[in-house]
Amino acid sequence: MSWELLSIIGTIAFAISGALVAMEEEYDLFGIYLLGFVTAFGGGAVRNILLGIPLSQLWHQDRLFLIAFISISLTCVFHQSLMPHWNKWGNIFDAIGLSAFAVQGALKAVDMDAPLLAVIFAAILTGSGGGIVRDVLAGRKPILLQSEIYAIWAGIAGLLIGTGLLTTNVQLWILFIAVTGLRMLSYLNNWHLPVIRMQKSSE
Amino acid sequence: MSWELLSIIGTIAFAISGALVAMEEEYDLFGIYLLGFVTAFGGGAVRNILLGIPLSQLWHQDRLFLIAFISISLTCVFHQSLMPHWNKWGNIFDAIGLSAFAVQGALKAVDMDAPLLAVIFAAILTGSGGGIVRDVLAGRKPILLQSEIYAIWAGIAGLLIGTGLLTTNVQLWILFIAVTGLRMLSYLNNWHLPVIRMQKSSE
Amino acid sequence: MSWELLSIIGTIAFAISGALVAMEEEYDLFGIYLLGFVTAFGGGAVRNILLGIPLSQLWHQDRLFLIAFISISLTCVFHQSLMPHWNKWGNIFDAIGLSAFAVQGALKAVDMDAPLLAVIFAAILTGSGGGIVRDVLAGRKPILLQSEIYAIWAGIAGLLIGTGLLTTNVQLWILFIAVTGLRMLSYLNNWHLPVIRMQKSSE
Repeated sequence: MSWELLSIIGTIAFAISGALVAMEEEYDLFGIYLLGFVTAFGGGAVRNILLGIPLSQLWHQDRLFLIAFISISLTCVFHQSLMPHWNKWGNIFDAIGLSAFAVQGALKAVDMDAPLLAVIFAAILTGSGGGIVRDVLAGRKPILLQSEIYAIWAGIAGLLIGTGLLTTNVQLWILFIAVTGLRMLSYLNNWHLPVIRMQKSSE
Repeated sequence: MSWELLSIIGTIAFAISGALVAMEEEYDLFGIYLLGFVTAFGGGAVRNILLGIPLSQLWHQDRLFLIAFISISLTCVFHQSLMPHWNKWGNIFDAIGLSAFAVQGALKAVDMDAPLLAVIFAAILTGSGGGIVRDVLAGRKPILLQSEIYAIWAGIAGLLIGTGLLTTNVQLWILFIAVTGLRMLSYLNNWHLPVIRMQKSSE
Repeated sequence: MSWELLSIIGTIAFAISGALVAMEEEYDLFGIYLLGFVTAFGGGAVRNILLGIPLSQLWHQDRLFLIAFISISLTCVFHQSLMPHWNKWGNIFDAIGLSAFAVQGALKAVDMDAPLLAVIFAAILTGSGGGIVRDVLAGRKPILLQSEIYAIWAGIAGLLIGTGLLTTNVQLWILFIAVTGLRMLSYLNNWHLPVIRMQKSSE
C-alpha cells in the first residue's frame, strides 16, 4: 500500500514534468498529454522491455493512468500559477519519483532473479528512463545526461538492493528517503560528476 | 481482403513519406530505404512491443515488405516529378494510412482482450508511431506533435472500437472513411489543437 | 571460442566509440558510461526486440559487461593520448565490430528459422543499431545514415548467410574478413552511396 503511494507520487511528478516540457516546446494539447504519459510510464516500459517482462501488464494500471490524466489536465489549467513554483516543488516531486521508481524497479528485477547488473540497470531505467524518452521526443539532448548528479543515485539503490544488503521494509524506506535526499542535495548544492573535456584541436 | 487493401495503401503512403524525408535530410540510398521501411513498419512494431505481441510476426509480411521496397524505389526514380504533387496526393495517402492502421491496430488490441486504454493507444501508435520514429531518426522534432490535428483522430477510432460501439464491417468502413476525412479536413482547414504558450519570463 | 573473441573486440570498439561521443557532447561521467554501454549492447538489444528473443539473455553476459566497463574506464583515463590515434585505430576496431556483430546477428536469426528478410535486418541492426541509439541519445542525426558505405556491408553479410550460401566456419571467417575489409576500403576511399538531392525550390 505504501509503495503504491510512492508510485502515485512519482507518476504525478513525472506526468507534470512531461506536460511542462511539451508546453516549453509549444506542442499542442495532444503533444502535452502524450509527453506527460510517456514521461510517467516510459521508464517502466523501457525496464519491462529490457528485463523481458510482458508489457501487457502496463495496460492494467487503470488507476495510475487516471491519475496521470488528471495531473496533466490540472497542469494545463494551472500552468500560469504553477510555473513560479515548479523549480522549487517540481524538483522535490521529481526526486521522490526518481527514488520511488528506482526502488520499485530494483525490487521487480530481484523478484525475477535477475543478475546484479540487471537490477542496477532496472533501477536506473525505471527511475530515469521516462525522462530520457521525453527529451528525445522533445528534440532535446537528454538533459539528464548533463545535469547535476541524478541517475547515479538510482544505480546505487539498485546496487544495495541487488546485493541483498537491504531487504526489510524499514531498510527500503530509509533507502528511499536517502536517495530522495541525495538527489535534492545534488540539485541544491549543484553537485556534478566530472565532465571530461576534450581539447577542441583534437577534433 | 479489403482490410489488406487498406494495409497496402497505408504501407505505400508511409514508405514514400519516409523516403522523401530521408531525401530532404540528404541521407544516402541506404538511409532512404531504412527510413522508408521504418516509417511503414515502425508503427506496427511499436504497437506490438507495447501490447506484448511477439515481433516475430513482423517478418512474415513478405508481400508488404516487397510493396514497401517497390514504393521506395519508385520514389527514388520519380522524386523529381513526384514532389510537386506530394503535398496534395501525399496528404491523402497519409490520411488513408493513418486511418487504416489506426482501425487495424485497435482491432488487433481488441482481439487480445486488451483494456480500453490499451486499445486507444494501440490505435494512436499504429497510426502515427512510424512517423514519430522516422522524425527521431531524421533528427527532427516529431512534426506530428506540432501539426494540424492528427493522432487524436486515431485515438477516437480506438475509443469507438474499444468501447464496442462499432463492430460490424460496415460500421468499421464508415469509421475508416470518417477518420480519413477528418484528418483531410484538419489539414485543409488548418485545424489545430490549442497550444498552451508559457511566458518566456517564467523560464 | 573464436566468435567470442570477435564479440569481445566488437564490444571494446563500440564501448570506446560511445564514450568518445559522450565526451564530445560534454556529458558527465554517468553519461559517458551510459553511452558506452548503450553503443556496445544496443545493437544486440534492438535485434532481440525485433526478432522476439527474450532480452533477459542480455543480462547474463557478465564478462562482456566487465570488458565494456574496463574499456570505457580506460578511455576516460587515456582519452588525451588516445584521440590522435582514434581516427586511425578507431576505424579499424569499428569495422571489426560491425562485421563481427553482423555475422553473429545473422547466425542468431538463422538459428531461429527467421525468414530471409529478418536475417538481413538482424545483421544490419546488430552491426549498426548501437551506433544509431548512441547518436539519438547524443542529440545527433545518426551519422551512420550519412557516412561512407557502412550498414550495407552488414546487409550483404545477412543476405549471404540467410540464403544459406555460406555455412561452414571457414566461409564465415572469410565473410567476416571481407566485410571488415570492404568497410575499411569504403572509409579510406570515401565510397558513398548516391545521395538524391531535392531541389530546394520544391520545398
